[in-house]
Amino acid sequence: MKFNIALLAGDGIGPEVIDQAVKVSDAVAAKFGHEITWKPALTGAAAIDAVGEPYPDATHDICVASDAVLFGAIGHPRFDNDPTAKVRPEQGLLKMRKALGLFANVRPTFTFPSLLDKSPLKQERIEGTDLVFLRELTGGIYFGEKGRRDGGETAFDNCVYTREEVQRLAKKGFELAMTRSKKLCCVDKANVLETSRLWRETVQAMEKDYPEVEVSYEFVDAVAMRLVQWPNSYDVLITENLFGDILTDEASVISGSMGLMPSASMGTDIALFEPIHGSYPQATGLNIANPMATVLSAAMMFENFGLQEEGKAIRAVVNDALAKGIVTEDLADGGKAYGTKEVGDYLAANI
Amino acid sequence: MKFNIALLAGDGIGPEVIDQAVKVSDAVAAKFGHEITWKPALTGAAAIDAVGEPYPDATHDICVASDAVLFGAIGHPRFDNDPTAKVRPEQGLLKMRKALGLFANVRPTFTFPSLLDKSPLKQERIEGTDLVFLRELTGGIYFGEKGRRDGGETAFDNCVYTREEVQRLAKKGFELAMTRSKKLCCVDKANVLETSRLWRETVQAMEKDYPEVEVSYEFVDAVAMRLVQWPNSYDVLITENLFGDILTDEASVISGSMGLMPSASMGTDIALFEPIHGSYPQATGLNIANPMATVLSAAMMFENFGLQEEGKAIRAVVNDALAKGIVTEDLADGGKAYGTKEVGDYLAANI
Ligand SMILES: CC(C)[C@H](C(=O)O)[C@@H](O)C(=O)O
Ligand SMILES: CC(C)[C@H](C(=O)O)[C@@H](O)C(=O)O
Repeated sequence: MKFNIALLAGDGIGPEVIDQAVKVSDAVAAKFGHEITWKPALTGAAAIDAVGEPYPDATHDICVASDAVLFGAIGHPRFDNDPTAKVRPEQGLLKMRKALGLFANVRPTFTFPSLLDKSPLKQERIEGTDLVFLRELTGGIYFGEKGRRDGGETAFDNCVYTREEVQRLAKKGFELAMTRSKKLCCVDKANVLETSRLWRETVQAMEKDYPEVEVSYEFVDAVAMRLVQWPNSYDVLITENLFGDILTDEASVISGSMGLMPSASMGTDIALFEPIHGSYPQATGLNIANPMATVLSAAMMFENFGLQEEGKAIRAVVNDALAKGIVTEDLADGGKAYGTKEVGDYLAANI
Repeated sequence: MKFNIALLAGDGIGPEVIDQAVKVSDAVAAKFGHEITWKPALTGAAAIDAVGEPYPDATHDICVASDAVLFGAIGHPRFDNDPTAKVRPEQGLLKMRKALGLFANVRPTFTFPSLLDKSPLKQERIEGTDLVFLRELTGGIYFGEKGRRDGGETAFDNCVYTREEVQRLAKKGFELAMTRSKKLCCVDKANVLETSRLWRETVQAMEKDYPEVEVSYEFVDAVAMRLVQWPNSYDVLITENLFGDILTDEASVISGSMGLMPSASMGTDIALFEPIHGSYPQATGLNIANPMATVLSAAMMFENFGLQEEGKAIRAVVNDALAKGIVTEDLADGGKAYGTKEVGDYLAANI
């Protein structure tokens, strides 16, 4: 197969980790007889510097003309602590999600047996954890009307959801649950919020179309607790944008494998793949950042094209490198630490 | 001193644990020469059964005529999984918070050395954890306009905050920080929400009035992570209603002492004290519920009256009972389990 992949490296360590994912993807393509054309484009602080905005039209055009987007990380310290700055990298992120219609953010949290001791949680609590959040990504309070009244003394943010928005996200949740252990948890705050009551009634009405899926409904505060107590009791979870923002980040630290977690954001036409970690500005250019989360994001990309074997090949070589200790300093545990590039080289050479 | 205390026992184990707190409070009053008049009133499912609504006017009248409210727990399984039911115990809770003006929910999370092994987190992560959340409790998306449009196909919830609402909550936060280690964390989502930007700018403007307090600003998703990673890095945290709902529950499970955590909800005129645990319906009437969280809530009540020694006396006898293993089955660890009443008797007798 032939693919065009938009390559949005972004800021900080983004370009370095993206380089490794490109190398590994090219090795997979060579092995399985595919051809990838990479289409680099500007985003984040890098784009603000170059053209004055974080998600330029030119970048958007490249994305829509591609079969998928591979994304590094965005964010730069000079925008920190100033959430009111006129132009910020995060605005580019939100604009991109909306413009590309990336309504479903897929965030797996799973464990690597060799990394269990990195978790803040006791080993027996996390063993076997393998859950996936589907976070709604283009609606809710992120995109509702917001502003000030009373001369700036009153602020408001409106949270809005339509039944259709809930349905298309929930559909992905049911379908994913069917490919896994057929357990789906709908996370809401239906005892307080009208939008949550719409979520719950919409998901309830869809249950009959997926009779094999066992659906549970839990309040967001209860899930925030149980994620820490018994993360391995969850499988697929679906939730709205803001709850998803909070809970996926909470879930990401429990497995001990945070630096290795990939993610996908799916739209109707295109999907984007990125590591969950940030731009880690202090490490920029030092060749110390762990590229594995980005490499595993490329694995999700192949799998999303229906190329399961290609995805498996990447996951296998990552496991192999972890087992052999061919890892960056964050995982070296006093042993030898390899560079970002060296880990990428090993992965690409051993596909 | 003479006090009138409204006594809202509520549902499930509420009445049993409240009985113990009354006994212990009476013992403290006797020892220190105070006189407490208890004013029982209906709330929760019990009130729905008796008079058709969860926070009757008669109960409200008793509360406003009292010096404080001691609250047990509300909630009954027959209202579960039906968040759309016309009358629900939780509505009584929200109505009570608003009617009594309880705008600041104070939720400490601390550790008891003897209970560290109950935590899902590794011991070295939680040792020394002693933080307090101040959650805004009468504003935000809980109380904004909510409803449906488009024949029910679109739902909305409006989140609204005024500068004044933020100021009065933040003031309590700064004041609390001054009595502790002078560290305050403002939790918001100022990179996305206008209400969060109002929170942040309001707190920033107050910093000059408390030059000794070191203030940090963190996004809610980052706090959800760090609470699990390094809970003992926090001291006082202030946040809006919904973030507070999620984060205080998350924080409550990390210490391993969840069953012992008290809370207070403060208004301008009156304050309410309650354990953070729920009504635990399965345990109703079995004399197995742990009364210590409610007893410690009574300690917070005395301290709020300015009676520090009285509060200390209660905390000391709870520590003593824990050390001697005079505990209910949740803490018995295979040893002898005492009944709810027997633990209460021991605490009252040893004040
Ligand atoms: C940077 C921010 C706007 C963004 C969000 O809140 O969605 C981030 O936290 C994320 O989860 O991708
Ligand atoms: C029962 C519910 C309405 C309530 C809330 O969300 O405030 C509860 O979760 C709490 O935290 O006291």
